[in-house]
Amino acid sequence: MCRVFRKAVYWLGKDTLRVSAALFAENRRRLCEGLRAKQGLQPKSLVLLQGGEQKQRYCTDTDVVFRQESFFHWTFGVTEADCYGAVDVDTCKAFLFIPKLPESYATWMGEIYPKEHFKEKYALEEVHYTCDVSWTDTKNATNFRGVNTDSGSVTREASFEGISRRLLKTDMELEVLRYTNRISSEAHKEVMKHVSAGQKEYEMESLFRHYCYSQGGMRHTSYTCICGSGHNSSVLHYGHAGAPNDKTIQDGDMCLFDMGGEYYCYSSDITCSFPANGKFTPDQKAIYEAVLKSSRAVLAAIKPGVKWSDMHRLADRVHLEELIKVGILRGNLDDMMKVHLGSVFMPHGLGHLLGIDVHDVGGYPEGTERIDEPGLKSLRMGRVVQERMVLTVEPGIYFINHLLDKALASEQQSGFINNEVLARFRGSGGVRIEDDIAVTADGVELLTCVPRTVEEIEAFMADRNPEKSFSPTVSSEKF
Amino acid sequence: MCRVFRKAVYWLGKDTLRVSAALFAENRRRLCEGLRAKQGLQPKSLVLLQGGEQKQRYCTDTDVVFRQESFFHWTFGVTEADCYGAVDVDTCKAFLFIPKLPESYATWMGEIYPKEHFKEKYALEEVHYTCDVSWTDTKNATNFRGVNTDSGSVTREASFEGISRRLLKTDMELEVLRYTNRISSEAHKEVMKHVSAGQKEYEMESLFRHYCYSQGGMRHTSYTCICGSGHNSSVLHYGHAGAPNDKTIQDGDMCLFDMGGEYYCYSSDITCSFPANGKFTPDQKAIYEAVLKSSRAVLAAIKPGVKWSDMHRLADRVHLEELIKVGILRGNLDDMMKVHLGSVFMPHGLGHLLGIDVHDVGGYPEGTERIDEPGLKSLRMGRVVQERMVLTVEPGIYFINHLLDKALASEQQSGFINNEVLARFRGSGGVRIEDDIAVTADGVELLTCVPRTVEEIEAFMADRNPEKSFSPTVSSEKF
Repeated sequence: MCRVFRKAVYWLGKDTLRVSAALFAENRRRLCEGLRAKQGLQPKSLVLLQGGEQKQRYCTDTDVVFRQESFFHWTFGVTEADCYGAVDVDTCKAFLFIPKLPESYATWMGEIYPKEHFKEKYALEEVHYTCDVSWTDTKNATNFRGVNTDSGSVTREASFEGISRRLLKTDMELEVLRYTNRISSEAHKEVMKHVSAGQKEYEMESLFRHYCYSQGGMRHTSYTCICGSGHNSSVLHYGHAGAPNDKTIQDGDMCLFDMGGEYYCYSSDITCSFPANGKFTPDQKAIYEAVLKSSRAVLAAIKPGVKWSDMHRLADRVHLEELIKVGILRGNLDDMMKVHLGSVFMPHGLGHLLGIDVHDVGGYPEGTERIDEPGLKSLRMGRVVQERMVLTVEPGIYFINHLLDKALASEQQSGFINNEVLARFRGSGGVRIEDDIAVTADGVELLTCVPRTVEEIEAFMADRNPEKSFSPTVSSEKF
Repeated sequence: MCRVFRKAVYWLGKDTLRVSAALFAENRRRLCEGLRAKQGLQPKSLVLLQGGEQKQRYCTDTDVVFRQESFFHWTFGVTEADCYGAVDVDTCKAFLFIPKLPESYATWMGEIYPKEHFKEKYALEEVHYTCDVSWTDTKNATNFRGVNTDSGSVTREASFEGISRRLLKTDMELEVLRYTNRISSEAHKEVMKHVSAGQKEYEMESLFRHYCYSQGGMRHTSYTCICGSGHNSSVLHYGHAGAPNDKTIQDGDMCLFDMGGEYYCYSSDITCSFPANGKFTPDQKAIYEAVLKSSRAVLAAIKPGVKWSDMHRLADRVHLEELIKVGILRGNLDDMMKVHLGSVFMPHGLGHLLGIDVHDVGGYPEGTERIDEPGLKSLRMGRVVQERMVLTVEPGIYFINHLLDKALASEQQSGFINNEVLARFRGSGGVRIEDDIAVTADGVELLTCVPRTVEEIEAFMADRNPEKSFSPTVSSEKF
């Protein structure tokens, strides 16, 4: 355990990323600056935060693997459960409050470290036991989230400047997000190298998770893996129910694998779509390239100052243009936009903020609301794009029967649809291309790195070998 | 999805186990019989159960992978979230209440099935929508657990005959537990085949999980994996904290890997202890064989009618006998037993009930309490052993510094300890040997199947290959 935090660095050894505790000191500094700039803040204010609690599953002793609460993690980088933390807004001084563990803890959970251990491990100014604190002293505390919330696992969202600090990523945070993207990209490529007809979708999910954990130290995925093949690739949250992704992958299936690993609580969120047999049919290619075109159009258009909702509309417009070329749609593009035809094929939003949470907080500034239009109402981000935002760009085209039937029954929309051509695509599922990006001063940095064009995918998959899985690297520790 | 439940059978394809819905019909029948035998039960009584709810992690949209609540699973085998169920005690008729899903569900989660689908899928008598039920009709309901509990995720434990029904496993349940044990045993062997110095403990955890999921359809482990090497093997719940099992395995380390997979909510719980380099030193062998001796003595002694606490004492006695032979202890065995010297080396209980929960319910009959003695107070099962109980047998000897220091400071205990010999073993960690067993009419059936003797382990590990990981089987579906 000590090795991990040697010199206030989180590191899981081998080629995993070293993350300095300075990352969180900078977060605290930004938090305090933001608060001090705020009018009406009393002097000697404290920000007080409650960390995640160790939960148990139902009434058994089976621990749910602990994952730190996100605001607490952003501010302190502390991995232990059942802590509190405070930051003095005037001085940026950080206080950590840890539970005083009973002696029996040492039998079950290992060595009990003194307070000094945590001070060094996390490079914090003061560490105290929670039992030594008189909590009534905290009347000047600015509650980032409720300490004594009685709402169970639902946290109160912070409503002040702290949020917008988390919205924009520092260089050190970007480094971690580059890492989670690199490992998750490699894991996706591993899956593409091994996929084949006859395998179960869950075998691919398992391989992805194994690569992320064994090669990248990512014990958790950022969200439940979606491993849809064939028709299932049109089920947007496939795999979330009580049973695993359990369909057998068939030879002509398109696969849509939406999976991302998480390191030291920082997320990634990547979708790859490709044919299970490594070779696109003309129809698969047509839909894939329509989505790729919208993805690339959006990536080229994003820069500080653009409205995210306009990026969503841009993706819709490219999809409709391309679906006209394929022959599924016919008529005037602007008229199609007016009746929101794009949302029939892409009912979800274009993308969302990404960070410590896979759907990171702060997508809507206080007082703003989602746009009440099909598609756009699912957009999780309503802000103008700013430098240092990290976002997913995830356009998709899906053939979802109940939405197609609704469109065909709609007076406004049915005239645009060539049902004969559409019939050919029904049941084929869908395509999503999802990249994570960081907004730069004049554009984007692409964090995800997987084969993306039809040519790249076919070339990459041409020499795949479903028999031979990767071998964990056996190497001695590097210091 | 449909394939999984074809003919009311849960099956994840390939070589995974087919589990008939008849398993749960038999559970319901046993439940009703037990209740009808109970005095004072009103006629027309219903057992009403609430299924697990789909939870979200903190305030984000990140679903925690759904796992059904255990009582609900035992009674209905239903995998969907947010359901209720009822059983008519007089007739054993089963009612399932499912949420009426909004149309938008089909966009995100896939096809919305009619009530008839669930009736067939689970072979239940009646299926209704929760919104169609007037819940005030249920005044004769016997609440198995509270439907409207306001205690969050803590369920009220059932206090009547239902519990003892879950205590004893049917043939069909035993079949599932044999399967979870077989796959988890194979996964442990996979790890033993690939372990080597220079690897991280979490690489081994990852490999275990990958094997269980990709080969056995086990998406969940039954509990957080404990992958201790070297000194960490004496930390009983190692790996449960916010960071993974992250030590680098050293040549010369003993490994203690306590890991089990879960299929269709049925658990397994297996510990293997072995030297990382595949070859025991004389001291490692001495401790390992001491534990193996107690394990085998207990397995030979278990049969219906014996007291579980006596089995715990038997293990303690064998450990003390063997530690005298090793030279760590000296003096009279009975005197050692009187001062509970065994609990210095095995502070946990000998084993626990296993089933849908890894620590299955019902270990103490109503009105009984744990024995207030060191070691025995940690025993999770205080009953007399009965046929059809499934239990873990998991003796261990650990060198835990703070317990050894306490013993050396104790007037009662210190005289028995040869501190010079003990010093040689300090820091070496510990050994646990954990098997799952089913109690038969006159003994036990061993469900776990891994190399156990020193000779078996050394022979098995002699031809291991840390480079080459297993290949997922690529085969077409068998029907």
